[in-house]
Amino acid sequence: MKIDCITIFPEMFAPMKSSIMGRAQAKGLFEFNTVYLRDFAINAYGQVDDVPYGGEPGMVLRPEPLAKAIRSTGVKEDGGKVIYLTADGVPFTHKIAKELSQENHLVLVCGHYKGIDDRIRQTEVDMEISIGDFVVSGGELPAMLVTDAVVRLLDGALGHKESGETDSFAQGVLGWPVYTRPEEFEGKKVPEVLLSGHHKNISEWRRQESLKRTQERRPDIFKNLEINTTFGDK
Amino acid sequence: MKIDCITIFPEMFAPMKSSIMGRAQAKGLFEFNTVYLRDFAINAYGQVDDVPYGGEPGMVLRPEPLAKAIRSTGVKEDGGKVIYLTADGVPFTHKIAKELSQENHLVLVCGHYKGIDDRIRQTEVDMEISIGDFVVSGGELPAMLVTDAVVRLLDGALGHKESGETDSFAQGVLGWPVYTRPEEFEGKKVPEVLLSGHHKNISEWRRQESLKRTQERRPDIFKNLEINTTFGDK
Repeated sequence: MKIDCITIFPEMFAPMKSSIMGRAQAKGLFEFNTVYLRDFAINAYGQVDDVPYGGEPGMVLRPEPLAKAIRSTGVKEDGGKVIYLTADGVPFTHKIAKELSQENHLVLVCGHYKGIDDRIRQTEVDMEISIGDFVVSGGELPAMLVTDAVVRLLDGALGHKESGETDSFAQGVLGWPVYTRPEEFEGKKVPEVLLSGHHKNISEWRRQESLKRTQERRPDIFKNLEINTTFGDK
Repeated sequence: MKIDCITIFPEMFAPMKSSIMGRAQAKGLFEFNTVYLRDFAINAYGQVDDVPYGGEPGMVLRPEPLAKAIRSTGVKEDGGKVIYLTADGVPFTHKIAKELSQENHLVLVCGHYKGIDDRIRQTEVDMEISIGDFVVSGGELPAMLVTDAVVRLLDGALGHKESGETDSFAQGVLGWPVYTRPEEFEGKKVPEVLLSGHHKNISEWRRQESLKRTQERRPDIFKNLEINTTFGDK
């Protein structure tokens, strides 16, 4: 898989060299590039933005540099997808991450200021993703989150330490509480059942805790849940 | 405002030096620090994690290093908040960002692997935030998103180019489409109304476009909307 991020702040992508993302690239599981939008600027000053029509504060990224930058990646020829990160897009979910992990080439367009000229959204962009109901300074952090969520679903991306099978959402519910050594910490003990070695009781406890947590914290998820009896058995 | 991030990957926080976040620090609007969890390791090998009780794949961050790292920040003494970034937390929103922007000290705890020992969540953590219904490799990218969303709400953080008044969610709805030069791009023209100079018509068009977009893309937001008549007038 190839992921290109179109950005005016390429230096922000340092986190893609760390941890699981860095290792996945070293293993050849995906290729990550930044495409510097100013390389496609409209003049020698590197201009890529302009004032919005109709008058309002803020600047808007112009269509010509964006169109050129997107086309330079060859994403259409590859049959890949162009994704624009924007607060008014479709909320990003585990399910979308799974779908995107099947693609061979993704181009992530990072907006800035008031956003990008709408004509690019209408003609060049295949999908618009929002990371949540809040606003951040640009699409760079959202693009890295999408990259991370997608890449960790690729075969071989996770080592034993990071196994994804029991993650929140992997089974449609929130995760259960986890405990590690020491058995007693500042007077607080690990729940008895986890020390019992009784596989079936542990599974049942986890299942109950996951459901309880989902019901308490995310009634929106809980009410749509089809409870399956094997879940928790890990 | 002071923001401390507890992490095993401090190098991932490079994006906090760029763009609006970098400038906000230079202006003295907030102080950003990383706290390296391994500085509070349980042994000379820098160990901070261990196998989960009850048996399952993955590792869990141990309670002792986390407790020490959190306490080293002085956040309780400052009357600040300790926040754990986790997929089973409360979904992060513009409203939460606004609340957090009133705090004087935030400590963001970045989980890794299967998460952190639940006793830390019970005793040291004031608030648990989820960035969305998907899983990423660690809390670093989510912590930076929270920082960005909070800091841009501080007085003086945004310049003219990044004005937040007309952002999605700032008025409870999605943003309207924006256009900039050129007036015609590859055969597509900017909507006539935006070129009219007619302030009232432009406001009304934006208002309608915002509502239409919100209704189409986010029926969940639209159905709870109290439509106010001044919105769009910017």
